[in-house]
Amino acid sequence: MLIVMKMGASADQVSQVVHEIESNGLKAHPIPGAQRTAIGITGNLGVIESGWFVSMPGVLEVIRVSHPYKLVSREFKPEPTQFEVRGVPVGGENFLVIAGPCSVESYEQTRSVAQKVKESGANMLRGGAFKPRTSPYSFQGLALEGLKILARVREETGLPIVTEATDIDVLDQVAEYADVVQIGARNMQNFSLLRRAGQCGRPVLLKRGMSATLKELLLAAEYVLDQGNPQVILCERGIRTYTDHTRNTLDLSVVPAIQEISHLPVIADPSHGAGVSRSVLPLARASVAVGADGLMVEVHGEPEKALSDGDQALVPTEFDQLMDEVRELALVMKRKIPVAVGA
Amino acid sequence: MLIVMKMGASADQVSQVVHEIESNGLKAHPIPGAQRTAIGITGNLGVIESGWFVSMPGVLEVIRVSHPYKLVSREFKPEPTQFEVRGVPVGGENFLVIAGPCSVESYEQTRSVAQKVKESGANMLRGGAFKPRTSPYSFQGLALEGLKILARVREETGLPIVTEATDIDVLDQVAEYADVVQIGARNMQNFSLLRRAGQCGRPVLLKRGMSATLKELLLAAEYVLDQGNPQVILCERGIRTYTDHTRNTLDLSVVPAIQEISHLPVIADPSHGAGVSRSVLPLARASVAVGADGLMVEVHGEPEKALSDGDQALVPTEFDQLMDEVRELALVMKRKIPVAVGA
Amino acid sequence: MLIVMKMGASADQVSQVVHEIESNGLKAHPIPGAQRTAIGITGNLGVIESGWFVSMPGVLEVIRVSHPYKLVSREFKPEPTQFEVRGVPVGGENFLVIAGPCSVESYEQTRSVAQKVKESGANMLRGGAFKPRTSPYSFQGLALEGLKILARVREETGLPIVTEATDIDVLDQVAEYADVVQIGARNMQNFSLLRRAGQCGRPVLLKRGMSATLKELLLAAEYVLDQGNPQVILCERGIRTYTDHTRNTLDLSVVPAIQEISHLPVIADPSHGAGVSRSVLPLARASVAVGADGLMVEVHGEPEKALSDGDQALVPTEFDQLMDEVRELALVMKRKIPVAVGA
Amino acid sequence: MLIVMKMGASADQVSQVVHEIESNGLKAHPIPGAQRTAIGITGNLGVIESGWFVSMPGVLEVIRVSHPYKLVSREFKPEPTQFEVRGVPVGGENFLVIAGPCSVESYEQTRSVAQKVKESGANMLRGGAFKPRTSPYSFQGLALEGLKILARVREETGLPIVTEATDIDVLDQVAEYADVVQIGARNMQNFSLLRRAGQCGRPVLLKRGMSATLKELLLAAEYVLDQGNPQVILCERGIRTYTDHTRNTLDLSVVPAIQEISHLPVIADPSHGAGVSRSVLPLARASVAVGADGLMVEVHGEPEKALSDGDQALVPTEFDQLMDEVRELALVMKRKIPVAVGA
Repeated sequence: MLIVMKMGASADQVSQVVHEIESNGLKAHPIPGAQRTAIGITGNLGVIESGWFVSMPGVLEVIRVSHPYKLVSREFKPEPTQFEVRGVPVGGENFLVIAGPCSVESYEQTRSVAQKVKESGANMLRGGAFKPRTSPYSFQGLALEGLKILARVREETGLPIVTEATDIDVLDQVAEYADVVQIGARNMQNFSLLRRAGQCGRPVLLKRGMSATLKELLLAAEYVLDQGNPQVILCERGIRTYTDHTRNTLDLSVVPAIQEISHLPVIADPSHGAGVSRSVLPLARASVAVGADGLMVEVHGEPEKALSDGDQALVPTEFDQLMDEVRELALVMKRKIPVAVGA
Repeated sequence: MLIVMKMGASADQVSQVVHEIESNGLKAHPIPGAQRTAIGITGNLGVIESGWFVSMPGVLEVIRVSHPYKLVSREFKPEPTQFEVRGVPVGGENFLVIAGPCSVESYEQTRSVAQKVKESGANMLRGGAFKPRTSPYSFQGLALEGLKILARVREETGLPIVTEATDIDVLDQVAEYADVVQIGARNMQNFSLLRRAGQCGRPVLLKRGMSATLKELLLAAEYVLDQGNPQVILCERGIRTYTDHTRNTLDLSVVPAIQEISHLPVIADPSHGAGVSRSVLPLARASVAVGADGLMVEVHGEPEKALSDGDQALVPTEFDQLMDEVRELALVMKRKIPVAVGA
Repeated sequence: MLIVMKMGASADQVSQVVHEIESNGLKAHPIPGAQRTAIGITGNLGVIESGWFVSMPGVLEVIRVSHPYKLVSREFKPEPTQFEVRGVPVGGENFLVIAGPCSVESYEQTRSVAQKVKESGANMLRGGAFKPRTSPYSFQGLALEGLKILARVREETGLPIVTEATDIDVLDQVAEYADVVQIGARNMQNFSLLRRAGQCGRPVLLKRGMSATLKELLLAAEYVLDQGNPQVILCERGIRTYTDHTRNTLDLSVVPAIQEISHLPVIADPSHGAGVSRSVLPLARASVAVGADGLMVEVHGEPEKALSDGDQALVPTEFDQLMDEVRELALVMKRKIPVAVGA
Repeated sequence: MLIVMKMGASADQVSQVVHEIESNGLKAHPIPGAQRTAIGITGNLGVIESGWFVSMPGVLEVIRVSHPYKLVSREFKPEPTQFEVRGVPVGGENFLVIAGPCSVESYEQTRSVAQKVKESGANMLRGGAFKPRTSPYSFQGLALEGLKILARVREETGLPIVTEATDIDVLDQVAEYADVVQIGARNMQNFSLLRRAGQCGRPVLLKRGMSATLKELLLAAEYVLDQGNPQVILCERGIRTYTDHTRNTLDLSVVPAIQEISHLPVIADPSHGAGVSRSVLPLARASVAVGADGLMVEVHGEPEKALSDGDQALVPTEFDQLMDEVRELALVMKRKIPVAVGA
């Protein structure tokens, strides 16, 4: 942490800041400059709030230097996190492809899509049973019935299932049926949900919030790891910006930025990133090439009849073409696309 | 809803869209233009997903025209919502002033701040017992003990208390102690929490999410009203933008925009909006002048020792000056600042 | 400037950075911490590019501490800048009210609006002769004829005129007719235009760019001052954010932030900030209350016939009401609204 | 264009709007709905300002349906624009690779970088002679001397040169030396510069503004084409968002969005998009895979000594690796990377 003093700060004001630092058991390092003095602080900074200094006389600003994450950080665990979900390896050189409908609408719809995406090469199945919807008047998901449909389709296809837990009252139920518990973008800072996800015994797919910084995303993951669950997959799904040609702006630059700081696998969701189906394919290709550890894509047999997010869903033949192109690019990127076993 | 066809769309493609509309029990109104055809849709649009049309051949885009909110809307209830909280009137010509520490840290700290803000003219007390913190390693609040401190301070000062429920597992407990249940910005789209808040029997203070649109905020409130709770106060607390001179950008333009569409009272939180104490006073003044129905301000006896958000807290003498200026401006705006009774 | 080393940085890497600093004639101040080392730099930092260090082995990041502006800064000139424009005092306790049409469309239209806004209390006249338009097919302004109309209306009303110079080829012509030369938001970083404005012998009204930071705005003004022209008025006119309830987001928090760092007067433009006329009045009030040194408001006799920006223009009776409210609030803020003399 | 009436709008108000439409020579198509009436407008909409209707009684909002661009649009010219620059084909299946230093600092530096990037496979040379800098105290470029250096290096390497014209007073000079005239992001809406670029007889590289929408970018290009210059290359270089892990957010989703609407070639600039050299390589790969028509990359022999933007420059060996990876991906994308001839 660095305290920057105003240009006219008196020697006395500098001394007071130094004294305040030292009275908290920390070490002060004054750096007198041509124009102003700065004061570095070392020691156990975890407990310090920057507000302690910013209101002191003569202080211009307080700059945090050290980073607050631990368990998610490469500085603490250099090697990339890898694990298996029902035989499908995640992380490392493996490339994860999660596909399926936005919402589970019926057994037939889910099974039909699942079989087709499996044939095209997807290795996990997505589908929402509990749906967070902006309007209370929109379709809210089939709930427990949706989870049972997903479990039945898993039996038949062998595809592990990824599905969202929208709050703590449904998390245990979701964890009972799902292979991977998804925490949605709107819940990225629902800290009680994150803690519970950290105790649920399932890998967690954590989506980046619509206006989350890299630091906030990593600290959200830190909540999960801090509860003893190291199996977290991060997911970039588009951020909110001023643009209007896509529903969100897929921030692919966050992928290498995460990989530099953290050992956790990170995938991209071009369906939500684009919000319109015609941009999903090019953004999926870009996600592979930027170095993501996987993709999550919405596929629907009849998007024009979908109960949610039909705008952005691919039809199975489009997904099949997507997989052809993803496979070619994955080869260049030296990535393997594992096949789901069973069924 | 309006379907805009591509320039080269064939008569056949137009017919197919018209047929699709009519087969859903709606009425189609084709508008053939010089360059392209548009098709208006009327009828019960509530059930339509725009995705139903966007993937049809010849369709360029789908534009939603009608607005999805009902209960929160002035079109459904023209007169402004007004209610009382322990004798403090909210809405209408009344100006609400909620002040207090970010976090409840101890009985002494809370009581001391409460007495001072009451003397300065605040009519409700804020203070967090459950704190949503970006890092799992930051102070997370005193929980139940914090709620008990707030209740004790209410006894002593007569100030109704506003405090946050961070998730459904604590909402009932919070509602037992609080006079107004706050839903924080990070939870604005925690829909199960919103529904539960709609059933809790207490007025709800709903903060705008960091990147929420006006429509999303109103639909979040719609979740609460839809559960039978009409007593909702909206709160602008700053949105996330590219700027760096404040922690967030206080979007005061949302106040008149809300007031035009909705009958719900809307207040401003310049403390979170600014994030630095020196900008709180000018932004509080601007909030009064823009026509907000109240203010929410963080005050701390010793910001330099605060366990959270000390950067943005005012000391009691600064808050006293703020109230002097707010009073003068409220007079110009023809607003009354009610006094909390009791104690 | 502060160089932060990676956690595992070797003593050798630290030495190399220290050596690099010293070989540039600067002084290095290493601060060895528990987790990592930081190195403060003092001396003449003006010439340093942070890129010099960021690519060195072991370096995590480079943090700039000192601020790059000089002439615009209160650290260099503590007292607020004040000057007169044809007898109208600007800055200090004076409150500037610039009003008029978006574009000069005809002599009659301009004179009619000018007389009305003068009667309501405006003390300068705005009106565009050269219009920067997003589309080449929109009305581009009357050019020289527009300037002549403005000059004639000034003769008749005594109102000093503010009008935009869209590029260097018209700046001298604009400066010949105008009392204040406006640099538009799209040109805030047109550096050759800024330099020329610094030499034109007229006060300059510099509008903040749509996505400009506070620092970029102040450095743009620095270009003007650096050419010997100290008479600059800054103008907040809304920034581009994700919101859609207004055309831009008026960032009133920038007003106190500028006033803390800079001695230059700063006004607000609620017309562009809102983009819809119904929000102009509340945002104008908020601008006064936040402490702005003035306002710039678009007024048009027949907005429904305006050749540009009719959505956001007030009619003269609305502007008259705005001035009534502004006067009351200016009184509370201890501001005088000077009257234009002459004519 | 669609006029949406308020819910309570009277039949009379609807008639007035219809009358206003018809009195402008246009056709009105009222669509009476269950909740409100909408009125479609057809005819020659080019001259209409939406402000004409938004202030009429009973009008809720005005929605523009038709798009304002013509010459840049695929609806007017379906086949992709292709042309040659000194024998290097641009557009179509060709993949353009422009590389070189941010600024031309000396003949030796420029020639050395040029030779290296040519050996690695770049087919054009970039380098700034006129530099738009945020601060007046930063290095502003070598101006004419820089242009002469570029021309000399072109002689020696055969690489066509791309360099920026920062304003109209230098544009002719730049056009005399350059093969492609660059219009920078800060000048994307410098309309006099765009018009002059449309007359200069050279292909134009138009960079997207920091907060420009797709529509604004295409209309900026429309200014160039409207002056008779059809050879425009668009360039995505990152937009300004709230994120802080990169200097800008490279918005790759704009590439397919442009390609759907416009026939103009579009390239990506991952150097400015990232702002830090370590993210340039992954974002360059993503740019190829998303389907861009080329890349623009900053390369410097000694980034730690660069006079501008050293943070984001690659060293020649890094660029060589980038080209290896780009070549592999271009093959998958069925793109050719042409070789500059001559010298």
